[in-house]
Amino acid sequence: MKTILLKNRPKGKPSVSDFEFVEEDVALDITDGEVLLETVYVSVDPYLRGRMNDSKSYVPPFELNKPVQSGIVAKVVASKHNEHKEGDYLSGMLDWKTQQVSTGEGLNKVDPNKAPLSAYLGILGMTGLTAYLGLTEIGKPKAGETLVVSGAAGAVGSVVGQIGKILGLKVIGIAGSDEKVDLLKTKFGFDEGINYNTTEDMTAAIKEAAPDGVDIYFDNVGGPISDAVLFSINRFARIIICGAISVYNNTELPKSVSVQPFLVKNSALMQGFIVSNYAEKFPEAIKQLATWLGEEKLTYSETIVEGFDNIPQAFIDLFDGKNKGKMVVKI
Amino acid sequence: MKTILLKNRPKGKPSVSDFEFVEEDVALDITDGEVLLETVYVSVDPYLRGRMNDSKSYVPPFELNKPVQSGIVAKVVASKHNEHKEGDYLSGMLDWKTQQVSTGEGLNKVDPNKAPLSAYLGILGMTGLTAYLGLTEIGKPKAGETLVVSGAAGAVGSVVGQIGKILGLKVIGIAGSDEKVDLLKTKFGFDEGINYNTTEDMTAAIKEAAPDGVDIYFDNVGGPISDAVLFSINRFARIIICGAISVYNNTELPKSVSVQPFLVKNSALMQGFIVSNYAEKFPEAIKQLATWLGEEKLTYSETIVEGFDNIPQAFIDLFDGKNKGKMVVKI
Repeated sequence: MKTILLKNRPKGKPSVSDFEFVEEDVALDITDGEVLLETVYVSVDPYLRGRMNDSKSYVPPFELNKPVQSGIVAKVVASKHNEHKEGDYLSGMLDWKTQQVSTGEGLNKVDPNKAPLSAYLGILGMTGLTAYLGLTEIGKPKAGETLVVSGAAGAVGSVVGQIGKILGLKVIGIAGSDEKVDLLKTKFGFDEGINYNTTEDMTAAIKEAAPDGVDIYFDNVGGPISDAVLFSINRFARIIICGAISVYNNTELPKSVSVQPFLVKNSALMQGFIVSNYAEKFPEAIKQLATWLGEEKLTYSETIVEGFDNIPQAFIDLFDGKNKGKMVVKI
Repeated sequence: MKTILLKNRPKGKPSVSDFEFVEEDVALDITDGEVLLETVYVSVDPYLRGRMNDSKSYVPPFELNKPVQSGIVAKVVASKHNEHKEGDYLSGMLDWKTQQVSTGEGLNKVDPNKAPLSAYLGILGMTGLTAYLGLTEIGKPKAGETLVVSGAAGAVGSVVGQIGKILGLKVIGIAGSDEKVDLLKTKFGFDEGINYNTTEDMTAAIKEAAPDGVDIYFDNVGGPISDAVLFSINRFARIIICGAISVYNNTELPKSVSVQPFLVKNSALMQGFIVSNYAEKFPEAIKQLATWLGEEKLTYSETIVEGFDNIPQAFIDLFDGKNKGKMVVKI
């Protein structure tokens, strides 16, 4: 049985040496009400970086020398549990372990016949929920409005843009390569794409792509890209702060253009979005996402890395934009 | 008859030479449906600075070589209007003129027997409405929460703090002199006051004054003071961006600590507040403010400058914090 522990709190960008790999030759026992789980897919996500710091946040930090946790799909390989039978698949927050014992609390049964198992970590999991609930609950989109998405080729961003199109918005995506920008338009149906790595004047590029201004900005990245969007926001604009991957690894406090004058001039709203605050809306949201997926109105990209030992590197690669869409590790 | 025109768009802090004083010896005629108004009190407000720039905002910019406008209380000195009689007092947006003709559109009758005339430019006018509606509509205060107010000794800030106390909040005010901080506590009932001009570490001072964290921040100033408040915000905090007087005169784009990571960590909201967006709530709000004023639960400070010719200087003095409470000019 293998486990990955957090060895050091990363300074800046994490490195593989911040993690410790432990291999033990033990047989795990289960008692009544428990299941033995074998990990099948592991989700790696930018927000995990925040939990590696020892600072106040919406979830407690990871403890040093304890297993890292993330979204995982696991197979029940032995059960003394009334509901969860051998051969079932469960999804939820679990340890980075090849095998573990669980009471099933906080885990949901997932059906491999309805969607590929990895989808339950992506479009039918936190990724899809984040995109759908962030856009609808804070963005409150109205058909005909203009939506800008940063990190647009990422797991959440690519779904946000597609939902934007379903809801009748003009959708502009910002991503970091021509290949990704191409994908936005050909695969995900975005109206416009901007490659921030080759665009000298992002402010002008956004103004050009959004001549009627920006009503909703779904922000996955923060930093200078988000500064540039401010210059195009409309009156009553809504800015969903879903993530700030561009600054997660900063060791100094990041500085940006002051947002306050833009917000007051435009009566605009900026709100931090954490999907777990909307748990009561999950069932309805998953149903909607599954419907759209079934109708082929939604598609998704995955980058699937193989091998338990590669989990930390896959996580680190997120910060270099090496993923297209959802990054998952197949065990 | 005297008029004050905008001569130049100010660069940085305005100066008296940005305004032109015109004196004409004309008798103004009125026709049916019009009143002749004599200006009694003129409100000067930080937001006017924004209208002096030629940039997109929630109200169109002032035109060059045209009269500046602001909130004014005027006396009807001649009338061919059905409702407004000679001797009545009207309040609303009017030109910086000693006399002017009006159809009365957009003006409200005010009663000098119910409150001093200048109060209709302050606590019972835009100032009180801004404080009350900003705090209640965006701040959504719950008794027991902690409120921080910047520009706390100013016209809006001093009312925000008092309403906070009426609604059962812990109220901390930030102001620029010991005298003002003293006023916050003795006159306006704030729980704590911080003098930002003598406090070296504002972040630490706010943490100390708000040991349970900050639930609502009513921001009148922007800049480094507002950066410091971010470090103390609680989960689900609400930040009302009412003004950014500290940066209104900046000629370069101001930079601040990036707010996005703080907002996402705390699921916090930051929203630009413009009182005119809430016009349908004015009658109810004025009623509430008048009730509290009558019950002596609200008090207010005014700085009254005398003389029409001193309007521009009174306006400029706002940016040096020379006012205590509402700055008005008596003609």
